[in-house]
Amino acid sequence: MKFLAICGSLRKNSTNMGLLRYAQAHAPAGVDFTIADISEIPFYNADITEKPIPVLKLFEQMAVADALVLGCPEYNYSIAPALKNALDWPSREPGNSLLTGKPVCFMGAGGGMGTSRAQYHLRQVCVFLNLHPLNTPEVFANAFSNSFDDRGNLVDAKIQDNIVAQLNALVTWTTQLKK
Amino acid sequence: MKFLAICGSLRKNSTNMGLLRYAQAHAPAGVDFTIADISEIPFYNADITEKPIPVLKLFEQMAVADALVLGCPEYNYSIAPALKNALDWPSREPGNSLLTGKPVCFMGAGGGMGTSRAQYHLRQVCVFLNLHPLNTPEVFANAFSNSFDDRGNLVDAKIQDNIVAQLNALVTWTTQLKK
Amino acid sequence: MKFLAICGSLRKNSTNMGLLRYAQAHAPAGVDFTIADISEIPFYNADITEKPIPVLKLFEQMAVADALVLGCPEYNYSIAPALKNALDWPSREPGNSLLTGKPVCFMGAGGGMGTSRAQYHLRQVCVFLNLHPLNTPEVFANAFSNSFDDRGNLVDAKIQDNIVAQLNALVTWTTQLKK
Amino acid sequence: MKFLAICGSLRKNSTNMGLLRYAQAHAPAGVDFTIADISEIPFYNADITEKPIPVLKLFEQMAVADALVLGCPEYNYSIAPALKNALDWPSREPGNSLLTGKPVCFMGAGGGMGTSRAQYHLRQVCVFLNLHPLNTPEVFANAFSNSFDDRGNLVDAKIQDNIVAQLNALVTWTTQLKK
Repeated sequence: MKFLAICGSLRKNSTNMGLLRYAQAHAPAGVDFTIADISEIPFYNADITEKPIPVLKLFEQMAVADALVLGCPEYNYSIAPALKNALDWPSREPGNSLLTGKPVCFMGAGGGMGTSRAQYHLRQVCVFLNLHPLNTPEVFANAFSNSFDDRGNLVDAKIQDNIVAQLNALVTWTTQLKK
Repeated sequence: MKFLAICGSLRKNSTNMGLLRYAQAHAPAGVDFTIADISEIPFYNADITEKPIPVLKLFEQMAVADALVLGCPEYNYSIAPALKNALDWPSREPGNSLLTGKPVCFMGAGGGMGTSRAQYHLRQVCVFLNLHPLNTPEVFANAFSNSFDDRGNLVDAKIQDNIVAQLNALVTWTTQLKK
Repeated sequence: MKFLAICGSLRKNSTNMGLLRYAQAHAPAGVDFTIADISEIPFYNADITEKPIPVLKLFEQMAVADALVLGCPEYNYSIAPALKNALDWPSREPGNSLLTGKPVCFMGAGGGMGTSRAQYHLRQVCVFLNLHPLNTPEVFANAFSNSFDDRGNLVDAKIQDNIVAQLNALVTWTTQLKK
Repeated sequence: MKFLAICGSLRKNSTNMGLLRYAQAHAPAGVDFTIADISEIPFYNADITEKPIPVLKLFEQMAVADALVLGCPEYNYSIAPALKNALDWPSREPGNSLLTGKPVCFMGAGGGMGTSRAQYHLRQVCVFLNLHPLNTPEVFANAFSNSFDDRGNLVDAKIQDNIVAQLNALVTWTTQLKK
């Protein structure tokens, strides 16, 4: 089973990337966990007729993914543009073939609400993309309470357990949807 | 009174830019209506310590603006990343001084819902930015019903009137908030 | 397969009830389609220790339902209280056993947006209830364009087809989730 | 200056009512702070042609209120029906005359997110009602961390200060909007 992770923060020591690194290192047995590199993907613009190489690379990874894992920062009570943009590009493919029907889960690190406001916006995006979000458990990490080290590595045991539980739930959800 | 408009779509013949062009050409007497150029603004990244020139240019325009007018496309049931990103950059300035307390209105062209889903997400963003959104009238334009010509110019009389009404309401709202 | 429908409007000639009546009359073969009566269900209040009879009746219907069909009016850009309340009562049952894991779809009649604003709020409610909303097709009916007769009966052919398509999709979705 | 408070929870020892009681007891000088009784207000139904007495009583209080203070519980990630219903009734008055243009603030007690999910839905409701929500400070109280005594009285000093700050901000916001 292949999981493709995408992180909405582009900075080097991102705590959201820290969540995804932890997830990658502790993925359930049998799960191939890849983290996409979206740092060179430009803003979507319908006038760009030739897709940039980093977009094509992302498309390849999406095409073979069984499920998505989105590292979701919160900027000003909503979604980080880089993450939203990485979902907007594939949405224009014929038949939405790269995304339609796939399961997805979210994890985020931010202020006291743990990026929940951004995650609920992201869930609405999934309606149109025809992605199927996992309902529970949700992962909301506080980035300002010693849960992460200076390099954005997750060191909080409770959140670590929460991520493992979410990944296991995503395996179950993916299996259920595959019939 | 200075209005600063920002368009979330980057394509040449954008209908959302068409709404803003119409607004600019029919701004109320006494209103200086500027449309920002955000095409070269990169994704916000906390690691970028020196602000890019186009960001600084936007900041200058925001600093003197009395109110914002946001041209709000809808991508996958939420905000276009380029628009969100243009608001995320100034939000990190000390004291949120470029935005705090300013009035704002939205207009959008898109599918049958006229970008309403994106506009409600944008209203939530305004809570944190401490912007004061105009409640009424809302401007929801259908981009696929001959309301625009091939170059994205607005030709629908009803929407044109709606925009003028909204700009007049924004003048009143801005005056009310200035006391 | 058993579908349980709940209507958020309590008035006699409700157009939202009209949508559900049409759905009931045109349910897919093999579907037992019941419309709940929530008119006597009081506001949820944790101090009410003995559940009222109409609440118990609703619980019985929910217990045997394979999927829910929610007739979703929009009051002031959000959910009608009677519908929300009919979901709040069962949510307090141990283990959320009446609802957890069940599929759900929405249809609504209202102003120009067809109750979409209320439906997206309802989708967020489903996250906590662990209901699995159908993504597509969505049903948004305009209640003020001769789509309904004076008694709230649906007479618009396009919306009628849309409802049939949604019910068929709900059968598929329910089957998929049952594995 | 008259503030009218409405609480979405109907139970006797409601923590949300506890927030409002604290606000009432510590209202700024010159503020007349009334808490409405909505316990006998029925679900809105357009077929009810004669308004019930408790609805008329609420209308009288709204008519003279300069601002609203909403005690906002969160049920299943959205608004408590009793609170939403108390806003739906006046919304049908001609010209929305009881509510239009008035300032409003929110405070809520609930789970770890402090009813934030419900409050953002409530902010969307305010768009249509043409109410003007205070942006900051927001009041999010955790109801399960000894912040309240057994009778729902607020005993947490930090939240108490937050409420006082919010009420002072509401006085300023109300004054600003009155011009």
